[in-house]
Amino acid sequence: MADDANLNDILALGRKARSAQTIIARAASLQKNDALKSMARHIRHRSGEILAANDLDLRQADDRRLPNSLIDRLRLDAGRIDAIAASLDDISALPDPVGQVIAEWQRPNGLSISRVRVPIGVIGVIFESRPNVTADAGALAMKAGNAAILRGGSDSFNSSRAIADAMQRGLEEVGLPREVVSPIPTADRSAVGMMLEGLGGVIDLIVPRGGKALVERVQREARVPVFSHLEGICHVYVHGDAEMAKAAAICLNSKMRRPGVCGAAETILIDRSLLPSAGGIIRTLIEAGCEVRGDRDIVRLDTRVVPAKEDDWSTEYLDAIISVRAVDGAADAADHIRRYGSQHTDSIVTENLEAAEDFMREVDSAIVLHNASTQFADGGEFGFGAEIGIATGRLHARGPVGLEQLTTFKYKVRGTGQIRP
Amino acid sequence: MADDANLNDILALGRKARSAQTIIARAASLQKNDALKSMARHIRHRSGEILAANDLDLRQADDRRLPNSLIDRLRLDAGRIDAIAASLDDISALPDPVGQVIAEWQRPNGLSISRVRVPIGVIGVIFESRPNVTADAGALAMKAGNAAILRGGSDSFNSSRAIADAMQRGLEEVGLPREVVSPIPTADRSAVGMMLEGLGGVIDLIVPRGGKALVERVQREARVPVFSHLEGICHVYVHGDAEMAKAAAICLNSKMRRPGVCGAAETILIDRSLLPSAGGIIRTLIEAGCEVRGDRDIVRLDTRVVPAKEDDWSTEYLDAIISVRAVDGAADAADHIRRYGSQHTDSIVTENLEAAEDFMREVDSAIVLHNASTQFADGGEFGFGAEIGIATGRLHARGPVGLEQLTTFKYKVRGTGQIRP
Repeated sequence: MADDANLNDILALGRKARSAQTIIARAASLQKNDALKSMARHIRHRSGEILAANDLDLRQADDRRLPNSLIDRLRLDAGRIDAIAASLDDISALPDPVGQVIAEWQRPNGLSISRVRVPIGVIGVIFESRPNVTADAGALAMKAGNAAILRGGSDSFNSSRAIADAMQRGLEEVGLPREVVSPIPTADRSAVGMMLEGLGGVIDLIVPRGGKALVERVQREARVPVFSHLEGICHVYVHGDAEMAKAAAICLNSKMRRPGVCGAAETILIDRSLLPSAGGIIRTLIEAGCEVRGDRDIVRLDTRVVPAKEDDWSTEYLDAIISVRAVDGAADAADHIRRYGSQHTDSIVTENLEAAEDFMREVDSAIVLHNASTQFADGGEFGFGAEIGIATGRLHARGPVGLEQLTTFKYKVRGTGQIRP
Repeated sequence: MADDANLNDILALGRKARSAQTIIARAASLQKNDALKSMARHIRHRSGEILAANDLDLRQADDRRLPNSLIDRLRLDAGRIDAIAASLDDISALPDPVGQVIAEWQRPNGLSISRVRVPIGVIGVIFESRPNVTADAGALAMKAGNAAILRGGSDSFNSSRAIADAMQRGLEEVGLPREVVSPIPTADRSAVGMMLEGLGGVIDLIVPRGGKALVERVQREARVPVFSHLEGICHVYVHGDAEMAKAAAICLNSKMRRPGVCGAAETILIDRSLLPSAGGIIRTLIEAGCEVRGDRDIVRLDTRVVPAKEDDWSTEYLDAIISVRAVDGAADAADHIRRYGSQHTDSIVTENLEAAEDFMREVDSAIVLHNASTQFADGGEFGFGAEIGIATGRLHARGPVGLEQLTTFKYKVRGTGQIRP
């Protein structure tokens, strides 16, 4: 089909994914885990083909003069391919969420009610340049009993296709339908619009993985539920009772461990009472290569601090830049976070337990931390094994989206002939 | 403001509800419970005013020649007002979901992670003629730390307004902002459209309560998440190993206890092997005043059975009518339910435990029952104390929507200075 797949082909692919989902929904854990291990083997065995497909994408990226950061995300090598396969093996070792009993109780009339995890259904994943999303998203969706319809960016079209191909071989090898992992076989842009409409009632959930423009479009146009975060404007609040060495280490790690991830801190708020001793935090950041943009009080602490503009407080730099502001206590910090934050991840540093608990209650973000780096905002770090992304929406999934969040539930009610009076 | 409230007034009301929500979100359980009890008192004390307002609505309903069923839903009397107040007292006695720890675990690096219930935010409730929705929805939303923006139908405008007024007095009496329960002060239809758009980013969730046309519009146009069910096409499947007396009682209760509720059965599926003895089920229904529409095999069982048309299998009668069909075993029954059902509530009657478990796994409805009436599809019967409705969507809330489903969660991560390697 390739590039000339027409809209009917895409609708037919949706129907096939839906029917494959009814099979994967009932598949035993053992069979799903075998499929994941088989996928990993096929990816390792076919690394030559995958690298050749990646080469094609890289050459086109060169022709299109894509920015280096994008080309870097796109590039695969033997190590990255092995990491993709290893992550499939890891997912096979995670507990199967499907069928887990979340709650169970008895009613006075003898009815026994249980709330049991079941798959969501068909999950549409729309992503940009990282070809490994094909493997991670497809594998997590599948382990939770869902089918995945994957629409990669045109930049990574061939690489993603080659990975999906290896995954489909893995499914078939254990007797599962290949359409459980369904890549859209065209770079045609209209496919995204169709997915956002639900692909003829087939798609239950959309997960976008990519930059702000993509997520914005998905949030605006999707007619089905979306798990996403638009941006991570994460804060570290250094409270008056903070231990300064701990605060400096947490600020540094929250920004500089990986400045480009969504859980990276973008703003530090420092209690005014600490200003006389806050120079160390600023120095630590600057000496690690971070540009610091500060308000009036912070500028005074170090000549290398750049004056911050109003825009800085609502900017997700995703780079070695951080804004720093003095605040008048916890309420002022919470106000700042309410006004400029993105309800993603925010941390307080303090030795005052009451202040920490207040902050964690007041700040309405998916993840709130006490005395820990914002870079822990990650499914792996939460113990979920793997994640398909981070959600800042309020319903169903918040924070890291792992296997459990890719399921829903139903109620099973067991009786002995009860009728309702 | 009354009927001439303009769009800006409605947007201002939304902002006030949002700011009231930040207060109710943090209110102590005791204060919320006091508010509920105070609301109940005010409703009882002001029953004269409420009945007068209801009278106004009833006279207008007469003028507009509304159908009797609608007028019946609209009508209040001393007993109904007392039931409304009693339900507020009941909700005050339920456990507060806010702050409940859903899960808690420790990571190898010493981080302690907990998943804690928090309010959803501002909930928009759009309803038709039943004025008691104002009290139930407002009280449940509030107890879960949310603000409610209530838009009742023009038919019940005055009654709902009077009830909301009593509730606002109850809130103020205990020092909480009246805008926690915010009725839209106009019958202007454009308010619904504004709510479906989110009222300027204020509304986090919409709950429609009313007929199919309303729910269809909400599902089609809402730009925020919706908890709803379009219809309840509920089935009772009488399996080959059913005990016939139990089956007849469950069929009868599932349809005739209250034929007009969403959990009422609309179709009975009977295993073909049982046809020789299935006449009793049909007779029981007919003698209770139910019209039975059957397929060829069922028509033969009783001369009073009307032949069913294809449409009957997908019709929610909400009346003393039921369709009955012979099926070839469990797989055929599940196929029928998949094709014609609405993923609401379905029951199997059998003494065969394996068949029951298979059915409850196969059938992908919010509620699946074994040897029990479909009329148990109700938050009160589940032990939730009260419900705001039933959801058949797949995400966040499925089945009865009670206090817990009106909350979301956040992660609290407690550390001692951990940074991520």
